[in-house]
Amino acid sequence: MPAKRAAKRAKNGAKSHVIGVDLGGTNIVFALTDLSAKILHRFKMPTLAQEGRDKVLSRMAEGVLRVLEESGVSAQSVQGVGVGTPGPINSRQGILYSAPNLPGFKNTPIKAYLERKTGLAVHLENDANAAAFGEHWAGAGKGTSEMIMLTLGTGVGGGIIMGGKLYSGVDDTAGEFGHMVIDPSGPLCGCGQRGCLEQYGSATAIARRAREAVLAGTQSSLLTMAEGDPSKISSRLVHQAAKDGDPLAHQVWADTAVFLAIGIANLVNIFNPQMVVLGGGVMLAGADLLGPIRREVLKRAFDRPARTAKIVAAKLGDDAGVIGAAAVAIARA
Amino acid sequence: MPAKRAAKRAKNGAKSHVIGVDLGGTNIVFALTDLSAKILHRFKMPTLAQEGRDKVLSRMAEGVLRVLEESGVSAQSVQGVGVGTPGPINSRQGILYSAPNLPGFKNTPIKAYLERKTGLAVHLENDANAAAFGEHWAGAGKGTSEMIMLTLGTGVGGGIIMGGKLYSGVDDTAGEFGHMVIDPSGPLCGCGQRGCLEQYGSATAIARRAREAVLAGTQSSLLTMAEGDPSKISSRLVHQAAKDGDPLAHQVWADTAVFLAIGIANLVNIFNPQMVVLGGGVMLAGADLLGPIRREVLKRAFDRPARTAKIVAAKLGDDAGVIGAAAVAIARA
Repeated sequence: MPAKRAAKRAKNGAKSHVIGVDLGGTNIVFALTDLSAKILHRFKMPTLAQEGRDKVLSRMAEGVLRVLEESGVSAQSVQGVGVGTPGPINSRQGILYSAPNLPGFKNTPIKAYLERKTGLAVHLENDANAAAFGEHWAGAGKGTSEMIMLTLGTGVGGGIIMGGKLYSGVDDTAGEFGHMVIDPSGPLCGCGQRGCLEQYGSATAIARRAREAVLAGTQSSLLTMAEGDPSKISSRLVHQAAKDGDPLAHQVWADTAVFLAIGIANLVNIFNPQMVVLGGGVMLAGADLLGPIRREVLKRAFDRPARTAKIVAAKLGDDAGVIGAAAVAIARA
Repeated sequence: MPAKRAAKRAKNGAKSHVIGVDLGGTNIVFALTDLSAKILHRFKMPTLAQEGRDKVLSRMAEGVLRVLEESGVSAQSVQGVGVGTPGPINSRQGILYSAPNLPGFKNTPIKAYLERKTGLAVHLENDANAAAFGEHWAGAGKGTSEMIMLTLGTGVGGGIIMGGKLYSGVDDTAGEFGHMVIDPSGPLCGCGQRGCLEQYGSATAIARRAREAVLAGTQSSLLTMAEGDPSKISSRLVHQAAKDGDPLAHQVWADTAVFLAIGIANLVNIFNPQMVVLGGGVMLAGADLLGPIRREVLKRAFDRPARTAKIVAAKLGDDAGVIGAAAVAIARA
């Protein structure tokens, strides 16, 4: 244990646990962890965002107290609570500015609210940053000092670890890798630009490209797999069809690897990191995606940083967020 | 003065000066500075790279000793020598791996050589990083903590300041903003990729786009200004013609601002910096380029980081390199 962390630990006396909370649009995940962010107790409850902000906030406080109850750990032995939330935040003040999937959460002082309700120190972090910090603390990036993470899900999120610490920029908005433009004449993105990486590397984009080709009349087993309904084509289905030898699905998947490699090569040239961790639902494809991406990044990025940067799959799966939130509470204690 | 720096200063006793050396393909610039990197004495000598590595190295050592002689400052009062060089380096070992404009410099232990010849502590840094650190230490970025710099010259270089420190990645190669692909079907770049930012925002690229249009038959006053020789069209000429109302030159210049803004918006979304400093010969255009870039970045990047990031012109001009080299020696002492 580094001297600094040992000193902190001494200061925190017998505080041997932290609580992680991962607030999502569908579920809230709660976990009690030890000071290495190892999960000792974990449960989730539905967010029920449509019931409004106050109900969700009160469920978050209840969940934290329930962690203590169910695990039999006293509040005195808890060092703090880390909370990961979607949307732009102010980490110092612990305010969630807004979150598209959480109606009513505009400018919500989550930290102040939870501290009042639980009596514990609360630390807020953006969920993509929390996931990256989780993978750094206890997952694929454990032991690295310079690491970046891309989460390939509905959108493309990102997080930056530098010098072993989370780098979140001046306004806690750093790491928006999904909105790096890689083709200014590409598809229109929700952010207002064209050709953002998110428009190529997200699960949504993979499904959309396959769907568009099917609707344009390209022969593909995808239509049958989707029971004749193109709107049912998902990135998972495209991956399955590609494995089964469907030419269209194979092409969509191959293009995805190239587009992602363009973005990752850009980031490798910019950050010269030890490691690039790829997470999110798209990575269920595993080696089928990692192999082509690695080859293409080696061709594209400068030789030295390309050879240095290990491109690997995330290890913590859906728990990256809650483990990262716990790790944030440990690191900031 | 921060406590840590004050402690260093005490340790270094009466060491009140540093020497900066900026090794370029054409000239070597030497400067004696105080511990705020203010230039007290400065001169340059031709590199004469064609005479070979050993001659250049010995000229570098001579130059350092000449700084002491001419300024009357004793070696005992010099804290160290900072050297900025082109090409990939190893900053810890002080080795220059290679430099296209300096034949024979493959794997050259510049630090060890200069330390032996001068008896002074030597610190090596990449020249683009040194320029960024110079602007951070004593130029446009003074007082910032999170700053990035793009140097728009023959190529497009970059440097990253984070938490007030130079960030250079695992292999000292970070900050290659010029090789961020912004259009995979764009012009072929020397790095092997297509559509790198350097292919749009460098002086070379601006001249090339104008030249290609003239050669393709577009009417323009540029041809007359270049005395009928398209190969004489330079980025400076394009800027002059644009100011004089030439439609082609105006279009090339406007396109340049948009392309640069795409790259800068990407970096603003990635780093969420306080400041983006733009330097290099292209910035002689000043407000004619800064204005359009600022407007376009505000439209493109996310609102919060776009409003935070001040986009400004570099202040140190050609001295950024040598001041940055001196600042590196101060910071690492």
